Amino acid sequence: MEYSATLPLSQLPYVYPAAPTSNKAYPFWPCNRRSSQPTRLHCNKMFVPGFGEASPEAKAAKNLHNFFTYIAVKIVAAQLESYNPEAYEELMDFLDRHSLNDGDKFCASMFRESSRHKNLALRIMEVRSAYCKNDFEWDNLKRLAFKMVTDSNTRLMKDYILETSSAETDK
Amino acid sequence: MEYSATLPLSQLPYVYPAAPTSNKAYPFWPCNRRSSQPTRLHCNKMFVPGFGEASPEAKAAKNLHNFFTYIAVKIVAAQLESYNPEAYEELMDFLDRHSLNDGDKFCASMFRESSRHKNLALRIMEVRSAYCKNDFEWDNLKRLAFKMVTDSNTRLMKDYILETSSAETDK
Repeated sequence: MEYSATLPLSQLPYVYPAAPTSNKAYPFWPCNRRSSQPTRLHCNKMFVPGFGEASPEAKAAKNLHNFFTYIAVKIVAAQLESYNPEAYEELMDFLDRHSLNDGDKFCASMFRESSRHKNLALRIMEVRSAYCKNDFEWDNLKRLAFKMVTDSNTRLMKDYILETSSAETDK
Repeated sequence: MEYSATLPLSQLPYVYPAAPTSNKAYPFWPCNRRSSQPTRLHCNKMFVPGFGEASPEAKAAKNLHNFFTYIAVKIVAAQLESYNPEAYEELMDFLDRHSLNDGDKFCASMFRESSRHKNLALRIMEVRSAYCKNDFEWDNLKRLAFKMVTDSNTRLMKDYILETSSAETDK
């Protein structure tokens, strides 16, 4: 029995109601941008379950925040490497002992290591803020993500068709 | 000896030259948006080492791409749960056996599992494309990331000052 998993999305009954206001961390953000009313009752978006009080955007922003800390550490390390080898060594040594997965935790630990580390942490924090606000190309990110999803979907279907057609040719 | 790790960024000599054209996957993207010339020679941005031919934006887009696949699986699962329990069970069973860390690998495996799974995979791919292009709030992501880096930096410094001032009061 083949079930109708490929029903066009427009024909699908949305089992869940539109996301309630409390589903987003920022309920004042209107869901439907074409409407000037700050209500989510007429939300045309797909419901994303499992994010509780947060939103997918907040989750993605948190990931980017950690990524920016990682980038800032790389930038500061590259700057220190030549003109201040002593500070560079201390940064590398600290990196060996602490995970960069949680950027804020990393900075908090660095703050408390020594007064020299505190200065390094302040600089990393300054750089991540400047990188996020000035250097990171947000439009480029969006463009690349659009391209990636289109290209990936095409490639996945093409690979599958090539595989199955060559299998049939081999028969 | 206290070394000058807190020099204002504007005073720092940039040890590394501006990122060469080959450092970005999309060299035609002008680095300095104020200039209409597609050259990177006068790039005012901080050099980010270690990304080879890719760029931080491409890396972040790849992460978001996997995140969108995860979101699409959640959306499709929520839709199937009520109106097609059989397909829902198959999706959950497949999820138990396959990691969602690499979205494309996940879809490719699903494609090859059975013809029913192939239809599910097609639907997940359709949903992740629609979510990325229509539903995801890109402006909100940027706004939240800006807010997060400012709030985190303030909080980290405030916590440290509170800690040290209370420690001095205790003396």
